[in-house]
Amino acid sequence: MADNDGLKNRGKTKADVKERRRAAENYTGVSLSTIGNYGFEAEMAAKNIENMIGAVQIPLGYAGPMKINGDHAKGEFLIPLATTEGALVASISRGMSVISASGGANAFVFSDMMTRAPVFRVNGIKHSREVMDWVDNHLDQIDAAVADTTSHGELQGMEFFPDGRSLYIRFSFSTGDAMGMNMATIASEAVCRLIEKETGAVMISVSGNMCSDKKPAAINMIEGRGKIAIAEATIPKNIVSEKLHTTTDAIVETNYRKNLVGSSLSGTLGANAHAANMVAALYIATGQDPAQVVGGSMTATTCEDVGGDLYICVRMPAVEVGTVGGGTSLPCQSEALQMIGCKGDGKAKKLAEIVASTVLAGELSTLAAQAAGQLGQAHKALGR
Amino acid sequence: MADNDGLKNRGKTKADVKERRRAAENYTGVSLSTIGNYGFEAEMAAKNIENMIGAVQIPLGYAGPMKINGDHAKGEFLIPLATTEGALVASISRGMSVISASGGANAFVFSDMMTRAPVFRVNGIKHSREVMDWVDNHLDQIDAAVADTTSHGELQGMEFFPDGRSLYIRFSFSTGDAMGMNMATIASEAVCRLIEKETGAVMISVSGNMCSDKKPAAINMIEGRGKIAIAEATIPKNIVSEKLHTTTDAIVETNYRKNLVGSSLSGTLGANAHAANMVAALYIATGQDPAQVVGGSMTATTCEDVGGDLYICVRMPAVEVGTVGGGTSLPCQSEALQMIGCKGDGKAKKLAEIVASTVLAGELSTLAAQAAGQLGQAHKALGR
Amino acid sequence: MADNDGLKNRGKTKADVKERRRAAENYTGVSLSTIGNYGFEAEMAAKNIENMIGAVQIPLGYAGPMKINGDHAKGEFLIPLATTEGALVASISRGMSVISASGGANAFVFSDMMTRAPVFRVNGIKHSREVMDWVDNHLDQIDAAVADTTSHGELQGMEFFPDGRSLYIRFSFSTGDAMGMNMATIASEAVCRLIEKETGAVMISVSGNMCSDKKPAAINMIEGRGKIAIAEATIPKNIVSEKLHTTTDAIVETNYRKNLVGSSLSGTLGANAHAANMVAALYIATGQDPAQVVGGSMTATTCEDVGGDLYICVRMPAVEVGTVGGGTSLPCQSEALQMIGCKGDGKAKKLAEIVASTVLAGELSTLAAQAAGQLGQAHKALGR
Amino acid sequence: MADNDGLKNRGKTKADVKERRRAAENYTGVSLSTIGNYGFEAEMAAKNIENMIGAVQIPLGYAGPMKINGDHAKGEFLIPLATTEGALVASISRGMSVISASGGANAFVFSDMMTRAPVFRVNGIKHSREVMDWVDNHLDQIDAAVADTTSHGELQGMEFFPDGRSLYIRFSFSTGDAMGMNMATIASEAVCRLIEKETGAVMISVSGNMCSDKKPAAINMIEGRGKIAIAEATIPKNIVSEKLHTTTDAIVETNYRKNLVGSSLSGTLGANAHAANMVAALYIATGQDPAQVVGGSMTATTCEDVGGDLYICVRMPAVEVGTVGGGTSLPCQSEALQMIGCKGDGKAKKLAEIVASTVLAGELSTLAAQAAGQLGQAHKALGR
Repeated sequence: MADNDGLKNRGKTKADVKERRRAAENYTGVSLSTIGNYGFEAEMAAKNIENMIGAVQIPLGYAGPMKINGDHAKGEFLIPLATTEGALVASISRGMSVISASGGANAFVFSDMMTRAPVFRVNGIKHSREVMDWVDNHLDQIDAAVADTTSHGELQGMEFFPDGRSLYIRFSFSTGDAMGMNMATIASEAVCRLIEKETGAVMISVSGNMCSDKKPAAINMIEGRGKIAIAEATIPKNIVSEKLHTTTDAIVETNYRKNLVGSSLSGTLGANAHAANMVAALYIATGQDPAQVVGGSMTATTCEDVGGDLYICVRMPAVEVGTVGGGTSLPCQSEALQMIGCKGDGKAKKLAEIVASTVLAGELSTLAAQAAGQLGQAHKALGR
Repeated sequence: MADNDGLKNRGKTKADVKERRRAAENYTGVSLSTIGNYGFEAEMAAKNIENMIGAVQIPLGYAGPMKINGDHAKGEFLIPLATTEGALVASISRGMSVISASGGANAFVFSDMMTRAPVFRVNGIKHSREVMDWVDNHLDQIDAAVADTTSHGELQGMEFFPDGRSLYIRFSFSTGDAMGMNMATIASEAVCRLIEKETGAVMISVSGNMCSDKKPAAINMIEGRGKIAIAEATIPKNIVSEKLHTTTDAIVETNYRKNLVGSSLSGTLGANAHAANMVAALYIATGQDPAQVVGGSMTATTCEDVGGDLYICVRMPAVEVGTVGGGTSLPCQSEALQMIGCKGDGKAKKLAEIVASTVLAGELSTLAAQAAGQLGQAHKALGR
Repeated sequence: MADNDGLKNRGKTKADVKERRRAAENYTGVSLSTIGNYGFEAEMAAKNIENMIGAVQIPLGYAGPMKINGDHAKGEFLIPLATTEGALVASISRGMSVISASGGANAFVFSDMMTRAPVFRVNGIKHSREVMDWVDNHLDQIDAAVADTTSHGELQGMEFFPDGRSLYIRFSFSTGDAMGMNMATIASEAVCRLIEKETGAVMISVSGNMCSDKKPAAINMIEGRGKIAIAEATIPKNIVSEKLHTTTDAIVETNYRKNLVGSSLSGTLGANAHAANMVAALYIATGQDPAQVVGGSMTATTCEDVGGDLYICVRMPAVEVGTVGGGTSLPCQSEALQMIGCKGDGKAKKLAEIVASTVLAGELSTLAAQAAGQLGQAHKALGR
Repeated sequence: MADNDGLKNRGKTKADVKERRRAAENYTGVSLSTIGNYGFEAEMAAKNIENMIGAVQIPLGYAGPMKINGDHAKGEFLIPLATTEGALVASISRGMSVISASGGANAFVFSDMMTRAPVFRVNGIKHSREVMDWVDNHLDQIDAAVADTTSHGELQGMEFFPDGRSLYIRFSFSTGDAMGMNMATIASEAVCRLIEKETGAVMISVSGNMCSDKKPAAINMIEGRGKIAIAEATIPKNIVSEKLHTTTDAIVETNYRKNLVGSSLSGTLGANAHAANMVAALYIATGQDPAQVVGGSMTATTCEDVGGDLYICVRMPAVEVGTVGGGTSLPCQSEALQMIGCKGDGKAKKLAEIVASTVLAGELSTLAAQAAGQLGQAHKALGR
């Protein structure tokens, strides 16, 4: 039928989008007018999606202002958050208010490297060792192969995992201010083609799952992927009682029984209350890849009583973010990045520090609420 | 300053949103006009967000049509996907085309239960046993406490984890067509208050991280959370070669070296190529909680050669979705749900089957592309 | 050569053992006189080993006496420990002395079930569901199949894990006072043959690694295997300072940074200092299966400050022990079991309580030593 | 009572052993004559145990001869195994016979490093970074501190894990032919004392569980601990059918459904059938630390069909063995080490290759037996 033909339209203009949407409406019998009511030039999303028929609109609010004392993020920030979970923004904002009143969050990026780990088929142990030897002895050729594919990325290191007829090589790249997955993939593939040619190993997949992208992998939690970002704050005891209506002891105990012991008994990678919530809301607002919430979910949250005050810290081993590329150029996302001064070159580490600080605020607020026995009530009052 | 006062506005009307956005613009010095150009009544999001200043627009496309033979999802579906990752929708759509040409995906929901696991402080072993005994002997009172909080949810089971001065109880609830987290939280808290009163145990947190929400927890992978959904397809060998330009052997080998061996060596919960991508795109499109992508990331993908044809299956242990509540009522999300006939009551299992089928298509396409050595190229051509 | 022919002797008598040992000496050129100097009737080991040429002698000492207040283990016990790691017995004994002086260890067995999980090949989802339905509807036939193989074991429950063309069923058996692996294996195989006959499913392995025996599996840590045993003690603050030369605070902090946070960051199943040491020494002494030390290594150790006193607890999710069968009838092992009143019928839970109490003592002593900064020195003075 | 006073004897002579045994007999009311009938000089175990009352005798047999083509282990070996699990030695021996008939096992040691990871308490992020900077800039002083404690070990690398007020440093040492735990512990402690003095960081434990000794830790599976040892063999299809009574296909399928998919679904670190069995039997025979069976249990076993023949490989990430120190000097253990030419200096890597080859044989035999549906029967005929 004519209308269904529109489903096969592969164009990128507003008219193409409209034709496809009409076809989709016809196919499904559903009006898609709200989806069709998007507020940007269709062509701007040409590299972000195929078969576009419009956009989904996620409510966007802010938390903060929050004071951050980072290497890169310095000052007060109003943090854009996109979510449909009632009470989330309010809760994070409460945490930020408390942290700001306590002098702000300290934050830094401990390491910064995007990884990709191809897997090769080899003939066995002997062949595997020959391949590793060849690689070790031809780093110049390998660097040159990388340089042919990118001017922003550099190979910083590699790790071998030989296992029978499989050989995994985990490459680590610096990728400038891009999140860097595609850069790493394309560079890795170039290196793989070289290795194939010189050694007879066969690349089975450019991603052998020791990378590991968008999966909860211990290797990322331990060795890091993207940025390892850490944020901390110390909340004076009087602020704990006056603003959080609980005590340092109660929060430390909640973190101990819930995040430490509970996470261990349930076989969890990471130990946190709800880091994924903050990561998702900030990633969606700023055009990051929301599937990489998985990396953020492995956050470790610790709370300690330091002379009666509350010390709280989040260690995030896999903050996979960029301030160029991906969804960062789309209009709304671009505005959200600008709100926190993170648009464009030289901003990726700053963004990672803001991610960690936001997670810190959300963890603090939720732990405090649970310590005060309020979680159920909060959702009842504000939530869906 | 007067303009900054707007940041403290807590109202829910369009005017409130505007005042806050103006204040945010003033505070950050950034124009937020695209964020402000949202296409729904502000009040509709009243229960979904606080401090709203507008919306972020995520490009939305479709994959399919895809043929699904589920218990609940029967027929052909055009799947709405929201993403900013170029090539993703095209890749999923390719998988759907192949699966549909092969007779469609079979899908079913194996179990359906939302969990919440409070942690109590007890005095030690003896007290812990007394609490468990009391609970075992007062199930009627506990059911009544649940019934006081919800008419849609029922307590279906519980599991005890005593550990020294901590006692975890993992409650499992049926929650109708809601994702059910809040229902489970509120009901659990009511039960906890009863247990506290009768046994002297102290609820430290209504969520003791043996639930476990939005964290990569083995307990969810093993026992399930939300829906355990499974989808499969068999692709005849000639379709593998003609449409996927590779062979059954090559796909099976890719799955073996990458998803099985690679995931094992990297200490991954789950074994898949990029399940989180499909889950994120479909969850965002349909108003699900994007932080629950974490549960989807633990998917197990298997591929087998059956008489030369390719058998492929995804097992998803934690599909935490709903068709009522949460973000499902927002206009765009509601339209997206309607596209697949999943809006409202009686549709949650259908949605879970569609999630699994969509993940199946995405896994197939990516594995096939990697088998054919094409991943780097696909991104170079289509991607960001 | 004639002498090497002795290597093929399959007999079980002392003379057979001697002939084989001679042949081994001849083959290797090494005198095996100490190995040959074993102190039991060769035939007694007929069911424990093949190709026997003698025995290895492991030094055996004792720790204790230790006071235990268990459901089954009540009183004071001298615990036999076989080890070659200097300082280990002394350290455990120190812990026992402290615990006894504090009123003893409380211990109990929370659950008791041996598991075996066959994996079947099925045709896919539909077939998998048919098999599960058949099983659910023929429990009487299944119980009868079990009863045909054992009079000591009973099937207590089962759990299904369908995944594409694989179907795993985790059977749980009570196995009396035997550790029960063989009983569970033989009974499971009988059930599998019945299922095969009735459903067309094909048993691929009677052990599909969801059992899971002698592997560090989250499923065992979460759901338990063998006995879930828990032991606790409260050490008054003055005993902490006088006998352990440290403070409650220091021990709690050591447990927090090391066992809780450190274990989490390193992706560890369980959270303990060295539970495997105690388990190995006690298992070897009493004829248990030393490969099942793996189950013991997933112990969770917690320490808390309770009014200044030290509360310490170990939760062991997989204590796989028996007091009949296996190596328990060998003369030395039998004597060791008798030392703790655990030989023969009706003693397996008592043994599990003693295992947990011994682990508790070893954990306490090592944590205290580390808290006092003494670990290196202790090994320097006593160790290898 | 006079006799119980013997329990407090701390001497190391035969007479001391006897006095303690008498006291233990008196205390328990049990005759310990078999335990007392040990065949070595009591003083030889002076550094291996305290409170010695005798020895436990574990039946010792051999498997093999097995052909090994390693870097260090070359030739045919008769492997000493101590066990009480009937059928185990026969099964391993069958595997060795098949592998030898197929040309032997190839084996090598990929890396060799003992780790120890102290945890320090620091004041927070700033302090943590100062400590790391100090360490990075004073490697000479650190090497000197190590050299003061050992002439056999050298610090080869270190890895930092900052997390809030905790800082973990994972040190990697070469330790010659000793297993090296004590060497690493003592050297680490010396380094820690230096760091404490220079930076104000406080060593909370010389072992912060990122080492991680005797615990199932992903960090060891991924980065290795002790030796990473790999062994492989290719079994021609006719040998598979004639000697193993099954097919390459059936073994590959068993490994796939059981070791790969089953281990993944159950949240297992590693993927093998029963590696811990072989490790335990060989470790106990040769005086290794049986608690380090845990490291061996994380073995990855892979099977592939290569032109109809069976390729099988084991990757063992944590073979923690030594040929000097520990229990290796005790008479029986020393004889067992000599049987395989592994006593003394220069032999540790050879031993690791033999461990991996033995595990390979055991894995092959069990997988083949399960493929042939024989596991239950084998135990019924031979077992306990």
